[in-house]
Amino acid sequence: MLSPDIQAALRQALQLAERAVGLTDPNPRVGCVLLAADGRPLGMGHTQAAGQAHAEVMALRDAAAQGHDVRGATAIVTLEPCSHHGRTPPCCDALIQAGVARVVVAVEDPNPQVAGQGIDRLRAAGVEVQLADADSAAASRELNIGFFSRMQRGRPFVRLKSAISLDGRTALPDGRSQWITGEAARADGHVWRRRAGAVLTGIGTVLADDPRMDVRLVPTARQPLRVVLDPHGRMPPGARMLQPPGETRVIGPGRADLPALLAGLGAQGINELHVEAGPTLSGAFLDAGLVDELLIYQAPLLIGEGRPLAALQPLAGLDLASRWRLVEATPVGQDLRLRLRPT
Amino acid sequence: MLSPDIQAALRQALQLAERAVGLTDPNPRVGCVLLAADGRPLGMGHTQAAGQAHAEVMALRDAAAQGHDVRGATAIVTLEPCSHHGRTPPCCDALIQAGVARVVVAVEDPNPQVAGQGIDRLRAAGVEVQLADADSAAASRELNIGFFSRMQRGRPFVRLKSAISLDGRTALPDGRSQWITGEAARADGHVWRRRAGAVLTGIGTVLADDPRMDVRLVPTARQPLRVVLDPHGRMPPGARMLQPPGETRVIGPGRADLPALLAGLGAQGINELHVEAGPTLSGAFLDAGLVDELLIYQAPLLIGEGRPLAALQPLAGLDLASRWRLVEATPVGQDLRLRLRPT
Repeated sequence: MLSPDIQAALRQALQLAERAVGLTDPNPRVGCVLLAADGRPLGMGHTQAAGQAHAEVMALRDAAAQGHDVRGATAIVTLEPCSHHGRTPPCCDALIQAGVARVVVAVEDPNPQVAGQGIDRLRAAGVEVQLADADSAAASRELNIGFFSRMQRGRPFVRLKSAISLDGRTALPDGRSQWITGEAARADGHVWRRRAGAVLTGIGTVLADDPRMDVRLVPTARQPLRVVLDPHGRMPPGARMLQPPGETRVIGPGRADLPALLAGLGAQGINELHVEAGPTLSGAFLDAGLVDELLIYQAPLLIGEGRPLAALQPLAGLDLASRWRLVEATPVGQDLRLRLRPT
Repeated sequence: MLSPDIQAALRQALQLAERAVGLTDPNPRVGCVLLAADGRPLGMGHTQAAGQAHAEVMALRDAAAQGHDVRGATAIVTLEPCSHHGRTPPCCDALIQAGVARVVVAVEDPNPQVAGQGIDRLRAAGVEVQLADADSAAASRELNIGFFSRMQRGRPFVRLKSAISLDGRTALPDGRSQWITGEAARADGHVWRRRAGAVLTGIGTVLADDPRMDVRLVPTARQPLRVVLDPHGRMPPGARMLQPPGETRVIGPGRADLPALLAGLGAQGINELHVEAGPTLSGAFLDAGLVDELLIYQAPLLIGEGRPLAALQPLAGLDLASRWRLVEATPVGQDLRLRLRPT
C-alpha cells in the first residue's frame, strides 16, 4: 500500500503528464513529483519537447531552483525512468546522482530499450523502487496509449473520428456536411487532433471539402503531420492542407497498403494517428480491423438520406457486425461524444 | 419555502406515483402522503386502476387502517386533487371531510374539469393550499407527460422507439434485425412500452417480424392496446399480435390520417403512444412533426449497408434537418439509451 502522500503525488504527476499532451511527441507524456521523506513537495515537472528534458530532470531542476536538497527524497514518476541514452542522458542516472532514495513508478516503460531496465538500474544503485496501484498504471498507459501501441505493436494507435447525425449520416447525399455538429464538438475534435502525431485523410475529402486538417480551435505547441492518401495523383496544388501551419505528406499515386502505411508512420515516431476521412477510407480502415478507437460526435438531428459513416463490406449476418465497447458517452455542447474500442 | 418534512414527503409522494405506472391509465399517476402537524407520517398511497381509489383516498384509508387521526394533518399530493365526479367521488371532498388542514400540491391538474377548481374548492372549505417547488412540479408533470398531452392537446404523447447501430442502421438490407441491441436494452424497451396506453406499429413490421408487441420482459398489471396500421388489408389472421395478452386494433383498409388517429386515441384515453415501427411509418410520424420523444437504443456495432431509422423526406439543406434536444444518454447493458425531444 502506498501512503496518502504518495497517492496524492501520483495524481499530481498524472496531471503534470496531461500537460505534456501536444508537446512531447514522439516521446511519452510523463510527470514527476519529488517528495521529501516527510512528504513535503520538493519539485515537479513533465516531459518537454523531444530532445529536451524529461520529467525527472525537470523535477530535479525545479527542486534545485527552489534550493531544495533532494538527497533521500522519493521521486514519483508516471512512467519508468529511461535507462538509455536517447537524445538526452538516462533519467535513471540523474535520479541516482541526485541521491534520490526511492522511486515510485506508475507503469513500466514499454520501450524495448527500457522495459524494466530502468527499474533494474535504479535498484542496482541502491534506490528503492515501488510500482504504483493498478489505477495509476492504467491512467498512465491510457495517456500514452499511442506510445504503448508504437512500442508494442510497431504502429500508431488509430483513432477514427466521425461526426454523424442520430440516424448515422455524415453528410447529405451530395456531400454537404457543414455543419452537422456544433461549435463545441468541432473544438473538441481539435483537442483530439492535438493528441495525434498525424492526421490522415483521403483525397476525396480534400476535393470535396478542402479542409485544413490542422489544430486551430484549441491552442497547441506543435501541429500534427497531415497525411493525404491520393492514389490517383489528384491533389490540387492549391489545397488548404498544403498551406502552413504544419507539414503535409501526400501518399500516392498508387494505392496505399494500410498496414505498411501504419508501420511506416510508427517507424517515424507517430504515436496516435487521427483518421478523419470519408466513408471509403474509413471503411477500408474498419474492414481491415485497423481502428483502435472510434471517436464519434453524434449530433441530435435526423437527416434521412445521406452519406454513411463508413462504406463497409456487406455482412452475411448481424452476428458478423463489428462489435465495440463504449468507453464514454459525454455531452459536448448539443452533441454527444462517443468513444468506443473493439471488444 | 416548504419545510424539510414537506419536501421529503413530496419526494416520497413522487416515488409512490411512480409505482402507479402501468396501473392507472387513463388516469394520471399520483402519490399522496399525509403528515401530522408535527411531521409524523400518518398514511400514504397512490392512484389505483381506473375506477378504483385515487391517491388521496388510498392515503386516507392507510391512515385509518393504522388508527391515525388525520384531523389537522397536511396532505402532500403530486397532482391537484380532483373536484369532479368521475368514476369515483371528488378527492377534494374526501380530504375536506377527513378534516385535513393543509394540502401541498406539486402541480395543477391539466384536466379542464379540474384545472384549479380542486384548489379553489379546498380553499373555499377553509383548507390551506400551497403549491410545491418548480422541481416537484416538473417531476410530476414528467411522470404524467401523456396525461398532460391528452388534456392539453387532445392527443397522446408520442414516443418513437428505435434500436439502431452506431451507424444508424435498424436492420440488414434484407430486414434481419434480431438482434441489434442486447437483452438489457430489449427489457428496458418493455419498461417504456409498459408506460404506454397503446403500442403502434405498421403492417410491414407485422409481416416481416411477426412481433407480439406486448409487455412481457417486465412485470405489468395491464397490457397496452396494440394498434396496427394496415392500409391494404394484409393483416394475417394468425399474426402473434392478434393473440392474447391484451387487445389489438387493426386500422384499415385505407390510409390512416395520423393526426386524426392520434385525436381518436386521445379521445379514448391513451396518454402515451409507443410507436415501434419500420422506416416508412416512423418517417411518416417524423415528417408530420408528430413525435414528442425519440427513444433510441444505440448498439455499439457497425453494420454498413442496412435499413434506416426512418425514411424521411429529402432535405434541401442541413439547416432544415429536424433538431432534437438530448434528454438523456444512459448505458443499458452494452447499449446506450438515448432520449431526445424536439427543440
